[in-house]
Amino acid sequence: MNYNQYARLDLPLTQQLDELKQLDFISENYNKLSFSNNIYTAFSNFFPEVTSSEGLDYKFNLLAINSKETLKDWLIDDQSSLSNSEFYALALQLLNYEANQDFDLSDPIQLMKNNQLPFITDATIDDSNFSSALYLLLNTRAKNGFELIDNLADKGFFLKYIENPNFNQHLFFNGKALPVFDAQNMIREVVYIESDLDTDLDGKRDLLQATVFRPKETDFGLKVPSLYTANPYFGGTNDDKDDLHNVDENLTAVTAENQPSFKKASINTFEKTTPDSKNAQSAEELATRQRIYRLNDYFFARGFANVYAGGFGTRGSDGLRNTGDPSETICAKEIIEWLTGDRIAYTSPARTKTTTAFWSNHHIAMTGKSYLGTLATAVASTGVKGLKTIISEAAISSWYDYYRENGLVIAPDACQGEDCDALAVVCQSNLKDSGHAIKLQEQFDKQLAYLQEQQDRTTGQYSEFWEIRNYRHQLKKLNCSYIGVHGLNDWNVKPKNAYKLWQELEKLPIKHKLFLHQGEHIYMNNLASIDFTNMMNLWLSEELLDQPNNAYNQWPNVLVQDNVKPDTWHGETTWHNNLGEKQSQVLSELASEKIKQFTDNGQTFKKLNLDAKHWENEFIKGELSELASEQIKIRLPQNESESILVGRPKVNLSVASSMNKGQLSVMLVDYQKRHRLSIVPQIIEMNAQPLGYQFAYETLREFKPQTQSTDFKLIAKGHANLQNYQGKQAVNINPDEFYDLSFELQPTYYCLPKDSQLGLIIYSTDVGMTKRPLEQTTYTIDLTQSSFDYSIK
Amino acid sequence: MNYNQYARLDLPLTQQLDELKQLDFISENYNKLSFSNNIYTAFSNFFPEVTSSEGLDYKFNLLAINSKETLKDWLIDDQSSLSNSEFYALALQLLNYEANQDFDLSDPIQLMKNNQLPFITDATIDDSNFSSALYLLLNTRAKNGFELIDNLADKGFFLKYIENPNFNQHLFFNGKALPVFDAQNMIREVVYIESDLDTDLDGKRDLLQATVFRPKETDFGLKVPSLYTANPYFGGTNDDKDDLHNVDENLTAVTAENQPSFKKASINTFEKTTPDSKNAQSAEELATRQRIYRLNDYFFARGFANVYAGGFGTRGSDGLRNTGDPSETICAKEIIEWLTGDRIAYTSPARTKTTTAFWSNHHIAMTGKSYLGTLATAVASTGVKGLKTIISEAAISSWYDYYRENGLVIAPDACQGEDCDALAVVCQSNLKDSGHAIKLQEQFDKQLAYLQEQQDRTTGQYSEFWEIRNYRHQLKKLNCSYIGVHGLNDWNVKPKNAYKLWQELEKLPIKHKLFLHQGEHIYMNNLASIDFTNMMNLWLSEELLDQPNNAYNQWPNVLVQDNVKPDTWHGETTWHNNLGEKQSQVLSELASEKIKQFTDNGQTFKKLNLDAKHWENEFIKGELSELASEQIKIRLPQNESESILVGRPKVNLSVASSMNKGQLSVMLVDYQKRHRLSIVPQIIEMNAQPLGYQFAYETLREFKPQTQSTDFKLIAKGHANLQNYQGKQAVNINPDEFYDLSFELQPTYYCLPKDSQLGLIIYSTDVGMTKRPLEQTTYTIDLTQSSFDYSIK
Repeated sequence: MNYNQYARLDLPLTQQLDELKQLDFISENYNKLSFSNNIYTAFSNFFPEVTSSEGLDYKFNLLAINSKETLKDWLIDDQSSLSNSEFYALALQLLNYEANQDFDLSDPIQLMKNNQLPFITDATIDDSNFSSALYLLLNTRAKNGFELIDNLADKGFFLKYIENPNFNQHLFFNGKALPVFDAQNMIREVVYIESDLDTDLDGKRDLLQATVFRPKETDFGLKVPSLYTANPYFGGTNDDKDDLHNVDENLTAVTAENQPSFKKASINTFEKTTPDSKNAQSAEELATRQRIYRLNDYFFARGFANVYAGGFGTRGSDGLRNTGDPSETICAKEIIEWLTGDRIAYTSPARTKTTTAFWSNHHIAMTGKSYLGTLATAVASTGVKGLKTIISEAAISSWYDYYRENGLVIAPDACQGEDCDALAVVCQSNLKDSGHAIKLQEQFDKQLAYLQEQQDRTTGQYSEFWEIRNYRHQLKKLNCSYIGVHGLNDWNVKPKNAYKLWQELEKLPIKHKLFLHQGEHIYMNNLASIDFTNMMNLWLSEELLDQPNNAYNQWPNVLVQDNVKPDTWHGETTWHNNLGEKQSQVLSELASEKIKQFTDNGQTFKKLNLDAKHWENEFIKGELSELASEQIKIRLPQNESESILVGRPKVNLSVASSMNKGQLSVMLVDYQKRHRLSIVPQIIEMNAQPLGYQFAYETLREFKPQTQSTDFKLIAKGHANLQNYQGKQAVNINPDEFYDLSFELQPTYYCLPKDSQLGLIIYSTDVGMTKRPLEQTTYTIDLTQSSFDYSIK
Repeated sequence: MNYNQYARLDLPLTQQLDELKQLDFISENYNKLSFSNNIYTAFSNFFPEVTSSEGLDYKFNLLAINSKETLKDWLIDDQSSLSNSEFYALALQLLNYEANQDFDLSDPIQLMKNNQLPFITDATIDDSNFSSALYLLLNTRAKNGFELIDNLADKGFFLKYIENPNFNQHLFFNGKALPVFDAQNMIREVVYIESDLDTDLDGKRDLLQATVFRPKETDFGLKVPSLYTANPYFGGTNDDKDDLHNVDENLTAVTAENQPSFKKASINTFEKTTPDSKNAQSAEELATRQRIYRLNDYFFARGFANVYAGGFGTRGSDGLRNTGDPSETICAKEIIEWLTGDRIAYTSPARTKTTTAFWSNHHIAMTGKSYLGTLATAVASTGVKGLKTIISEAAISSWYDYYRENGLVIAPDACQGEDCDALAVVCQSNLKDSGHAIKLQEQFDKQLAYLQEQQDRTTGQYSEFWEIRNYRHQLKKLNCSYIGVHGLNDWNVKPKNAYKLWQELEKLPIKHKLFLHQGEHIYMNNLASIDFTNMMNLWLSEELLDQPNNAYNQWPNVLVQDNVKPDTWHGETTWHNNLGEKQSQVLSELASEKIKQFTDNGQTFKKLNLDAKHWENEFIKGELSELASEQIKIRLPQNESESILVGRPKVNLSVASSMNKGQLSVMLVDYQKRHRLSIVPQIIEMNAQPLGYQFAYETLREFKPQTQSTDFKLIAKGHANLQNYQGKQAVNINPDEFYDLSFELQPTYYCLPKDSQLGLIIYSTDVGMTKRPLEQTTYTIDLTQSSFDYSIK
C-alpha cells in the first residue's frame, strides 16, 4: 500500500525542536543528556497509558530492536546510538506494524520503502540526528493511515491537556491542530435561528433549528471556529413515501404549446433585524441527534465546533422544502450569520429569549457530501461574511445537471423517477411531528404542486426554474477558498457538476483545490492511499485558526486517483480537455457501413427481467439479441501505448428519428479483460482511526483490484433530446430527416492501458436514467457525418 | 412486527405508584392535582432535553392527539380525561411511531394490536387509570425494540442521577436496572492477575492481563457486579497466518497401529497464594482496547462493570494457547478469583505492586459467544465462588463436537482445515509484541507440535485429549444459573453442543434457560421480535444485584423462534426428542429399489469450480449429473398438515464400502417452494438503541422472509466414519461387506408447513466439512435394513 502523504510540512530544525519540547518528546536540556536518556524520554511518550516506570519497562520489553534484543535490554547499557535498522524496527512497531508478520526485524527499510514511508538514511541514529528522525516519525502515517502523533490520542497522550483546566487553547504540531479537546464531554445544544423568510406563509419568520456541538472549553472563554454542515437529512427522512414519477411513458414532442412558464415560489420576506447580545441567554435545549460525519468528529477533538442544520421544512424547523431554490441557500447562509453575530437566535420556538454563538471565533468552514456539499457551494456563492472555505464533496453545481440533461429528464443513479418534488417530500421531516403535520400538510401539498408544475417533466428544457438553481451562474460574490471532491465513478451526482464548477472557479481570485477519487457517491476522508484528513487539518488550521502553514502550496491543484494502478495519485494543474491533445474520429472510418440503424423498444429490460444495473451490464456486453438490436456499437483502434483520456469527450451525430421526437444516449466504454479497481472502497480495518480520546473511530478503506477480471467498464455517458440537444430551446423535427446533434459526455480522467480499446455505444433508452417509451422508435445515424472528439494525454 | 415481550413484570399498583413517584413521573400529591396537571408532569419527563417551560410547550405542540388538536392545545383547558384513542395516539408517538406514516391518528389501537403492544381498553384515560396506563406505557417496547423508559436515556432523562454526586447507587424500574451511571467517563484500567500455572515454562507464574471498565461511581464507595467476558480474541488475532490443514487427502483406515496415545500438556503448577489487600495500589495502566459486546455496554450504563480477559498467550499475558485444555478453564476462572478477592493481581508485569478489585460486589456473570461463550461454560463447570450465572451464546460444550464427529475430522462451517493447533495460532496474540515473540516463539512451536500430535487428524477418534475438552463430563461442581443461546442455523458451533449440554444441565438443581433463534453464528441481543436484552436485565438484576424479581418464572424454559412465521417464538419445557411422537421409516419403503449405490469422487467440486457453499446448494439441487451420481436421495411422504420436527433425527444404515474404510454423510432437507426466513437477521435500523447517555448504540435487526423463494432448505446434517460411527473405538471393516451404522443428525426444532416434504440425502464427501479423498469409493446401502427415526410434534 502506498501511504501517499501531502500534509507533512518540512520545517526548520529549530521549529521541530520547539515542537518536540512542547510535547515533552525531548527535554529542554536534551543536548546535555545521554542518547539513551533521550530515547527513554521520547519513547515513554509512546506509552501514555502506563503511569509507572515498571509498566514502562514492560512496554519497552515488548519492543524488539532486532531478533535478540528488546528496547529494555538495549537501555540497560548506556549506548550512544541505534543502527538505522534498529531504529526503524522500533519505528514500524510504533506505527503498528507487526514484526515477522508485516516486516522482517532485520530489514525494516524494505517495508518503509514499499509503503512510501519517509525515513532518514544515516547508518546510525544518535544524538546528531535523533530529534529530526523522531520528528519525522511522529509525522509519518501509521498502518491505520493516521500520523503517529494522531494515533497517540486514543492512548491518552493528550489527556494532560484535556484534563488540565488551565490549558484552554488550540495546540499545533507540524502546522496542524492536535486533539487536545475533551470530545467525550462535549456541549450539545439546540438553538432556533430567525430567518428573514416565511416559506410556510404563516405570517411569521421561519425559525431554523441548529444543533451545536462545541468543546466545553468554550464555556471558559475559548473561541473556536465551526465546521458547519447544512444537512437536509439531519432531521430524518421520509423514506417510505412513494413519490417517484412513472418513467414508463412515451416522450412528448416539444411544441410552442408546452413550453414552461416560470413562477417564483411564494415566500414572505422580512427585513433583517439586528441582534442584541446584551440579554442573551444560554441555550435551553440539549441536542439529542447523532453526529453524522467522521471528518467533523475528527476536527471536534481538535477544537472545531460542529454545527448541523437541516433548513426549512426539516424536523424542528419551520417552513417548506423547495429543492434547490434560492430560499434554501438563504436559510443555509443564515446559520452562518448567527455564528458571526449577525443574526438573532432563540432558545426555543417561543421566541422569548435570544441566545448567541458567544463561543464562535467567526471563522466557518462548510462540509458535507451530495445535497450537503451542494448547499456549501450554494452558501459560498453568497459571499457571506465568516465563511472562509468549503469542503464540498460530490456536490451538485446546477440542479439541471442533477435531474436533467440536454433537454431530457435524466435520473441520478439508482433514483429513477426522482425529481425536485420527490426530494422535497424526502426532506420535509417536520411533518414527522404530528403537531406540525396537522397544521402544515395543506401548505406543503401546495408546495408540491408548485414544484411539480415548475420542474416540468414534459419538455426537459432549461428554464428560469433551473437557472435560479444553477450556482455556477451566481459566483460573482464568492470569496472563500474551495476544496472540491468528486468520485469519477459517481453516477448519482455526475462528475460534470464538479467539472463545470471547477472551470468557473478557476476564473476567480480564490484558492481552490480538487480531488478526484475512484469511488462512486462517497466521502473520501478514510482512504489509505492519501492523507486527506490530515490535508484538511492543514487547510483548516490555516483558514480557520490563522496558522500560517502555507497549506495551499503543499499539493497540486488537482489530485486524481489512478484507475489502473492501485493507491496512486496524479497531480495536475487543472481538469480540462486542454490537459491533453485533441483527437477526432469520423465514425464511418471505424465501421464497415456508412449508415447504421437501430430500433428502440423502451421496455425491453422488462421482458428480460433485468433491473437497471444488470440491464446496463448486459447492454454493454451485447450478447442478447434483444439488446444488440437496440444499439450501434463502434470500436476505436486498440491503444498501442498507455495514455490518459482527459476532460469531456464529445459526440457529433447526424441522426434521423422515425418520429417527430426522440432521445439519444451514448456510452463510452473501455474494452479490455483485466482486474479493475472496485468502485466501492474495501474495508481494510474497521474502526481503525481514533478521532480523539475515547471518542469516535473511522474505518480505513481503499479501492483494490477486484478478485474477478472484467471485460469492459463504462467510462462516461451522455444523453440528448433530438429536439433540444443543448437543453436550451426545443426545435421541431420531422420524422426520418437527418439532424446534427453535438453533446458532451461526462468528464473523466481515465488511464487507458496498452491494448485497451475505446468503444462507443449509441442507443436510446437508458433504463436507469431516461424515460422508457412504450412505443418503438427507429434511429438512423449517418456515420459519415458523425464524429467523436476527445483529448488524450 | 410482533414486539414480543417477556421481561415486563405485572406489579401491584402501589409499587407502580412508588416507582413512578421515584422517577418524578407523578408527583407525591398527584391525587390532589388535576388530570391535566398530572399529564403535564408526566409528559414533561418525556422531553428531558428541554429545560424551559417554553421549550416544553413547543414539544407538546409537536404531539397531535387527533387530526385537529395538539397536546398543547388540549392542555389549555383543564380537561379531566383523554379518550383511549387520544392517549394511545400520544403513546405511539412517544414510542417513536409516526402519525400518518406508521399509524392513523384516529385509530392508534390498530397498530398497538398489530405490533403486540400492551394497552388498556378503558374508553377514557382519567385520574382513575392514568397512573397504571402510564406505568404500562413506560414498560412498553418502542419502535426501536427498547422499552420507552430505556429510550429516555439518550435524551438525558437520567442525567439528574448521572450528574448528581450524591446519587451513587443502582436504581430499578419494573425489576430492572436503569441506566443511571456515567458511561461516557468510565474508569478504564488494566491489571495483571497472577495465575497458578506456568504454561510457557519459564519457571514463573504466568500473568493474565485483564481489562476493567467500571463506573467512576465505584471510586466513591459503590460496589458493582461484573459482566466478565473471557475472550481469546481480545488481544487481536493472527489472521494472516496460514495454518489450515490440507483436507484433500485420502482417508486412513484406522488400525491398532495408528491409535492415539494421550500425553498431558507440560505445565508447571504453583501453590495458590493468599492475597493481602493491605498494601494494594490503584491500577497503573489505562486500558486502550475497544469494548466488543453491546450487551455488556448496555449493562455498563446500568452499573455493571465490564471485564475482558484474553487468557494465556494473548496479547499482554504470558503463556501459551492450548485450545480447550483445562488450563484455559483455569486461567479464565482465575480472573473471577481476583474479582472476588481470592487472587493476587499486580499493577504491572513487574509484579511489584498488588491491586485489588475493591469495587467488586463479588457477584459475577460471564457473557460471550462462540469461544467466549465456551469459556463461560468451562468456568461454570469449576463451580468457582462468585460466578452467579452465565449467558453463553453459540458455545462449544465439547471440543470433539467442534472439530470431530463420529470418528471423522469434521470442520466447522467456513473453517475447513482448521483444528486446535490453527486456533491456537490465531489466538496466540502475545507474539504480536516482538519482544515477546523473540523469547517465546520456540516454546510456542513446541506447543503447536504437541497439539498437532494430540489432536490426531488421522483417526478422528475420541480420546483422552478430547475427553478433557468435554465440559459435559465435568458438570458436577456447576452451581450457577445458565442462559444458553444458540442459532438453529449455526453450522460453525453446531447446535448439538447446546442440545447435549442442555440435557445434562436439566439433571442439575440449577436455574437454566435456553433460547434457540433462527440465525447462524451470531449474537441475539438486537432482535426486534424478542426483548432479550431486557430479559437479561431482569435476570442479572436478580442474580447479581439481589433484586427479588422472580425472573426465572417470567418465561418458559426454552424459547424457540419459528422458522416459518416471522417474529414468532414458541415456549417449551425442554429441547428433546421426547417433545414429539417418535416416527420411524424403513428407507426401502420410500424408494423403488431395495439396494442403492453411489460412487464418491472427493474432488468433484473442483472440477465444477464450486466453493463449499455453492457446492452444497448444487448438491442438494442435484441437477448436475456429476453430483447426482454421488448421492442417494430419498423423499418422505408430503406433510399433510403443519407439524414440528423436534430433537435429533437419527439414521440407521446398512452400508458396504468398496474399501476397508469410508465416511458417510447424511443431510435432512425440507423440500417446498416458499419464501423462507433469511438466516442473517436484516437491519431494521442502524444504531437504533441507545445503551446509555451519549454512549454506544445497538442496531435493530430481525429475520425476515427473503424476497426470493427457495425450493429447499437444509435442516440437519450428520457424518460418520464407517469404522467408528460412535467415535469411540474403531473396528476393522472389509470391503464390500455390509455393516450397520447408527448416528444422529444435528438437533432441530423445525416447523414443517402443510405440503412440505422431508428428504434424506446419503453421500460421502461433504466439501466444507469432511476430508475430500483423492480416490474413488463406492458405497452401497441396503435400504431394507436402513431406517430414519425422528420425532414430530
